[in-house]
Amino acid sequence: MLLGFDVGGTNARALLIDPASRAILDRERAPSGGHGEDLLATLVALTDALTARHDFELTAVGCGVAGLAHRSGVIHYSPNLPDVIEYPLGTELESSLGTPVVVMNDASAGAWAEAQLGAGRGSDDFILATLGTGIGTGFVSGGQLVRGHSGFAGESGHMVVNTDGDEHHTGQRGPWELLASGSGLGRLGQHAAVNDRFPAGLDVAGSIDAITGFTVAAAAAQGDADASAIFSDFCGHVALGLANLVMILDPERIILGGGLTSIGEPLRAGVAARLTHHTLGADHRPPVDVVLAELGDDAGALGAALLAHRGVVEG
Amino acid sequence: MLLGFDVGGTNARALLIDPASRAILDRERAPSGGHGEDLLATLVALTDALTARHDFELTAVGCGVAGLAHRSGVIHYSPNLPDVIEYPLGTELESSLGTPVVVMNDASAGAWAEAQLGAGRGSDDFILATLGTGIGTGFVSGGQLVRGHSGFAGESGHMVVNTDGDEHHTGQRGPWELLASGSGLGRLGQHAAVNDRFPAGLDVAGSIDAITGFTVAAAAAQGDADASAIFSDFCGHVALGLANLVMILDPERIILGGGLTSIGEPLRAGVAARLTHHTLGADHRPPVDVVLAELGDDAGALGAALLAHRGVVEG
Repeated sequence: MLLGFDVGGTNARALLIDPASRAILDRERAPSGGHGEDLLATLVALTDALTARHDFELTAVGCGVAGLAHRSGVIHYSPNLPDVIEYPLGTELESSLGTPVVVMNDASAGAWAEAQLGAGRGSDDFILATLGTGIGTGFVSGGQLVRGHSGFAGESGHMVVNTDGDEHHTGQRGPWELLASGSGLGRLGQHAAVNDRFPAGLDVAGSIDAITGFTVAAAAAQGDADASAIFSDFCGHVALGLANLVMILDPERIILGGGLTSIGEPLRAGVAARLTHHTLGADHRPPVDVVLAELGDDAGALGAALLAHRGVVEG
Repeated sequence: MLLGFDVGGTNARALLIDPASRAILDRERAPSGGHGEDLLATLVALTDALTARHDFELTAVGCGVAGLAHRSGVIHYSPNLPDVIEYPLGTELESSLGTPVVVMNDASAGAWAEAQLGAGRGSDDFILATLGTGIGTGFVSGGQLVRGHSGFAGESGHMVVNTDGDEHHTGQRGPWELLASGSGLGRLGQHAAVNDRFPAGLDVAGSIDAITGFTVAAAAAQGDADASAIFSDFCGHVALGLANLVMILDPERIILGGGLTSIGEPLRAGVAARLTHHTLGADHRPPVDVVLAELGDDAGALGAALLAHRGVVEG
């Protein structure tokens, strides 16, 4: 059996996966947080909970983590797990579980899962962009997952798109995720409300600070013209960064994932409509398909487990 | 024997290459320009000139072109060759020469040459950035050339880094190459001269319009403080875009190529010094080596020929 973990800032998830059918047999979840040793204990406890319900032999373990997860299994730095710094999660987990462990970036893991079982099937060149608190990206190029030298590829949310822009909590000015993530949609909504251009949102949320991306999306879905204008701007910000990635990597397809995809078709269509505008030479390029991810919250754990399995099978 | 072409806006170059030793045996050059048929005639004439001097059998032909060169051999669009649009150079050249032909982006071709014979040796994950009139990039990831779905990967010069920036001739606001190419260095010099912050450059060049990147580089090399300040800003612009690519692709090494590398070590060191500043989480990443390209003007033709040869050998 395979075990896949996905470690986020709030929760750690575990999936038990059959390597032959690649079906998810069971799942567990627990709060994450704390130091590296706490995270290790959490993942071992999740494993124990699954072991108590099933009789299985573990052949490989994959772990997706938001942040700089080195190929060696060391989590160098994760903005979602501020107390986990330079922690050798891979080797510690291997010792605890007695199984080969692959630790990797969660968006790269998600891309690999979508490639095998989801919206990336049939494409050798695609980009997964997950829009949530920040933006994560994973790339498949020439049929292979792009991991980079250390395994840090895909930190595109930090790509600067406006050197004259506002300062982000990362200290950068105008990184892509500042306005193009789920939090970015909330920021755009708050900014509009401050300027009295989103009264409906302010009514619903109760205060400027309480306005989130979902406030905007819900109001837009109900036909509020202010919210529609904000959402349209937002789709432009998403498309600008994606167009940069299209010019850099030339994908056939873009897969939108992450919490914000609960908005569904309006998000997909809004981004797709603006992508061409931002892509230089679009008249001379085949159009890039924009689609929604298919695997939801399971993608990270699933992809990490499948990549770990491949490593074991191929040696 | 292999034949490698590199088609630029001014000249087309041809190299005759021994596939076993990968040595360059001879070379030819002719003005480029005109429509697709003119370009075909030029490349055939270059081949004839080499044939007249050598007795050889051609086994594969590679052709590097600045712009959107499709895997199918069609040049969709090239800003340097404005009259060559949607021209099937690959199939036409195959008919004329009776040999398999690979047509590809020149910077991708250059990256492949540097990977095999130049500054990319020993690295499975690197970026080549050529700084000239514009910026071209080529990527090797996991030991493989990143070509993209259509073969258009590497158009990173058009990556927008300042949505509030000045408009480029491409119509975009604030693309990377606007300030970070050789032309960009000239623009920065002109801008300084207009504001009376580069009198030495104005003296040497004779007029604002005559100030180029080389004016700035030469003055900086001679110790002019204004030029040094401009050059320092320039290195920051180069580093900003490279840092974006580092966060996206996580290379081990960055290779600087193109005409501007005649500046040499001051360029390499200036960019390297600023790269860390722009790379988020640099404290938690291994440092990225910044080195100069080794193959100069031969890289594009050489890389295209070597890739064509690989295609023939591997079927």
